[in-house]
Amino acid sequence: MELKQINDLREIQFKIEELTHAYVQCIDDNRLEEWPEFFTGDCLYQIISRENHERDFPASIIYCDSKGMLKDRVTAHRQANIFEAHVYRHIVSSIRIAGYENDTYTVHSNYAVFQTRVNGYSEVYNVGQYIDKIIFIEDEPKFKEKKVVYDTLVIPTLLVTPI
Amino acid sequence: MELKQINDLREIQFKIEELTHAYVQCIDDNRLEEWPEFFTGDCLYQIISRENHERDFPASIIYCDSKGMLKDRVTAHRQANIFEAHVYRHIVSSIRIAGYENDTYTVHSNYAVFQTRVNGYSEVYNVGQYIDKIIFIEDEPKFKEKKVVYDTLVIPTLLVTPI
Amino acid sequence: MELKQINDLREIQFKIEELTHAYVQCIDDNRLEEWPEFFTGDCLYQIISRENHERDFPASIIYCDSKGMLKDRVTAHRQANIFEAHVYRHIVSSIRIAGYENDTYTVHSNYAVFQTRVNGYSEVYNVGQYIDKIIFIEDEPKFKEKKVVYDTLVIPTLLVTPI
Repeated sequence: MELKQINDLREIQFKIEELTHAYVQCIDDNRLEEWPEFFTGDCLYQIISRENHERDFPASIIYCDSKGMLKDRVTAHRQANIFEAHVYRHIVSSIRIAGYENDTYTVHSNYAVFQTRVNGYSEVYNVGQYIDKIIFIEDEPKFKEKKVVYDTLVIPTLLVTPI
Repeated sequence: MELKQINDLREIQFKIEELTHAYVQCIDDNRLEEWPEFFTGDCLYQIISRENHERDFPASIIYCDSKGMLKDRVTAHRQANIFEAHVYRHIVSSIRIAGYENDTYTVHSNYAVFQTRVNGYSEVYNVGQYIDKIIFIEDEPKFKEKKVVYDTLVIPTLLVTPI
Repeated sequence: MELKQINDLREIQFKIEELTHAYVQCIDDNRLEEWPEFFTGDCLYQIISRENHERDFPASIIYCDSKGMLKDRVTAHRQANIFEAHVYRHIVSSIRIAGYENDTYTVHSNYAVFQTRVNGYSEVYNVGQYIDKIIFIEDEPKFKEKKVVYDTLVIPTLLVTPI
């Protein structure tokens, strides 16, 4: 590859990492109203167990297939859902471009979410893998698809906050 | 932006990440005598709860506002404090430049610290966010301010080792 | 340093990070047959406690000094070992080039491995540091040495899957 191509590729990698970091910090900061803006209008956000994902079973905990549904989810979270107060802290690593087709980057990364509840203890809440489809709209990366494939089968409290 | 500017920005991002990585590895390797050198002479190192930080309350677990105070802390740690032997392991992610003003970069990142005590178990000790103010002195980044904003309200053992 | 040199150095850093990410995702995806391919033919893979490493004691949990031994290990894992089903999830951070000599990069990073067993809970399984010796063969980085120096002295279940 020529230097320019490598530079372009590194710049894309950088922007994809930046998207991922901004995404998790938005959730951790509890700025959920901004959360749908990381997605394209016509998108997929899914939280699914590793088992179901590997067997291609569709059953998932959360399945939203438009930005409107993501917004609804935030409204429900703010107004309707009853749950114990908690905060999240995401650690993400190994953000890798695994493929590229039709202007879409497939990106894999590993995540761990720690939850702190009112008792003050921080616990491993959920770990797994993000499988993302990312496109660039006017030079800005957006999630066309974000699949949260979790290892942790026990979801200790109602999963109301996005991962 | 032009290519040169983007390159410069990426180089700054790289150096800031490098600073953060060197910082945590210094602590994890128990080379605490080197720890104050990551800061400017006139600095702020603070460990504060998320609650107090968000409400702008000043009360914090640790508050040091000069490199001299950081050195004192290390001396106390080595000579005076009594505590159970333990090692730390930091995992840091999502190091993001959140702002730039007066030659100072504001940088946010997420951390998780695992503690291993003499019983041999590794536990989630403390998770939270670093809010850093970083300046470059002769091309080398230094912490002018490092605020450790922790989610974990329960500090299981006396917090003696910096985070 | 000149721009070209800096660019080359960043490119090397990038490829080393990429190697580390691909390595952990290979294990987490349970594609263990591909695992030996991250190493040179004549290699060292060692899992050793922090205590023994620091005192230069040789005793380790796993010691393989050729790619053939790594392959044997995978065969044993697939066919002979009896253990409770589990999956791993690695989080790696702070991948830093700590030295360079004789075409070999010494690289330090921190890792945390979460294990999920059939009961569905994800637990902190093992945390520690990778100390790697990496060489480039035809522009591709390979582990000439990978030392897994663990803090966690309690290995709750037989350690059969590589870290």
